[in-house]
Amino acid sequence: MSGALHLRRSKLAVPLGAVAEIFQGLAGHLDEHAVITDVGSVKGFVVHAARRYLGHHLSRFVPGHPIAGTEHSGVESSCAGLFHGQRVILTPLADTDPRALERVRLLWRQTGAVVEDMGIDRHDQVFAATSHLPHVLAYALVRAAARVSGRSALVRYAAGGFADITRIASSNPGMWRDIFFANRARLIEMIERFREDLALLRDAIETEDGPAVVAFLDAAKNTRDALAAEQRIGADLVGDKKR
Amino acid sequence: MSGALHLRRSKLAVPLGAVAEIFQGLAGHLDEHAVITDVGSVKGFVVHAARRYLGHHLSRFVPGHPIAGTEHSGVESSCAGLFHGQRVILTPLADTDPRALERVRLLWRQTGAVVEDMGIDRHDQVFAATSHLPHVLAYALVRAAARVSGRSALVRYAAGGFADITRIASSNPGMWRDIFFANRARLIEMIERFREDLALLRDAIETEDGPAVVAFLDAAKNTRDALAAEQRIGADLVGDKKR
Repeated sequence: MSGALHLRRSKLAVPLGAVAEIFQGLAGHLDEHAVITDVGSVKGFVVHAARRYLGHHLSRFVPGHPIAGTEHSGVESSCAGLFHGQRVILTPLADTDPRALERVRLLWRQTGAVVEDMGIDRHDQVFAATSHLPHVLAYALVRAAARVSGRSALVRYAAGGFADITRIASSNPGMWRDIFFANRARLIEMIERFREDLALLRDAIETEDGPAVVAFLDAAKNTRDALAAEQRIGADLVGDKKR
Repeated sequence: MSGALHLRRSKLAVPLGAVAEIFQGLAGHLDEHAVITDVGSVKGFVVHAARRYLGHHLSRFVPGHPIAGTEHSGVESSCAGLFHGQRVILTPLADTDPRALERVRLLWRQTGAVVEDMGIDRHDQVFAATSHLPHVLAYALVRAAARVSGRSALVRYAAGGFADITRIASSNPGMWRDIFFANRARLIEMIERFREDLALLRDAIETEDGPAVVAFLDAAKNTRDALAAEQRIGADLVGDKKR
């Protein structure tokens, strides 16, 4: 990077593991009014690096996270209209410049995204539950199922349900290592909460407690059905979007 | 059911919990040459009930399991061509009449299904791994994620990955209670194997052991990619099938 380079607007879309180094490299090359944002899925981690390396540019750093994507990574997987109708979460700091926040908000709105603000801790808790834990489970399920049934039987007999539940285990390992580490404490905590619920269902199955099993399954189905309905509404709203 | 009724061919497609009672009710009404089959997803359980109630009809009972279906249940969810190009597994007993086996095989082939034989124990082990465990995990994940992030945040922020991994948690609770109980011992064993793999990945994350995490994720991705390729081949072979 040339010492003469001055950046007016920087949006970082790199692996989380590289964020600190990039902030460090950017700091000396930023225009005084440059607005910086990112798309990382663990905001506490990115903000920590920003506080450490961005110096007086910190007030114009607007942490962001678009909730969209596929299990494929790389430029060849890019897709026009990816963000149209999708949510983008911004997690501004107490001292974020309101004009910088507004500029990033507009930038995302231009892609057709629905933008909203959230606290950093709350963001990282919600995504430990809805994204990071599911990835851990999908990878662990593929390993356990292959270990017990054998890989070739798994490939041969797994039905659509197994393919769906493990789709995210086709995601990029290096990227997910970075995300797991970046949200480590909350993810470990979330795995513990999951293990409690798994033990509850396991015990009800072991003791053949029919009403307990049905109550557990009913409540989960109810939540899952509400989620599916919400996503259908979302899909209808962006009817022309490529899916 | 009238005492004069004689059935020549019976295919049972009822909840597993009702199988024993139905065998009991059928036994007195079956034609001497009647061939009986079923579509239950736990073969040991069904065969146990058949041995107990079908008497001398047992040799013409051919246990079967079509590997197809959706998360929706009931007649309104039926779909022409559902079995076309799909696998159907038969688990004949040592003393199954070869002509009965052949008739059931033909019956399935007429629907366009690919039919193959498998041992009862092996069948129940493979499906504990590829179907019953995934359902347990999907239901438990929805509960844990809703408990930590709150139900409304879950519905609002969960992306496509979460919707995919929990799709099977929209399945019928009563049907899955029956399946969990029918394959109880193997399912409990499978949950233990899964917990071992989850603990392995959790520990590697907690200690930030990057190479261990990437090795775990890489192996799982490799298996999952092979599965996706197999299913694409299957989908191409039955190109005209409604999906």
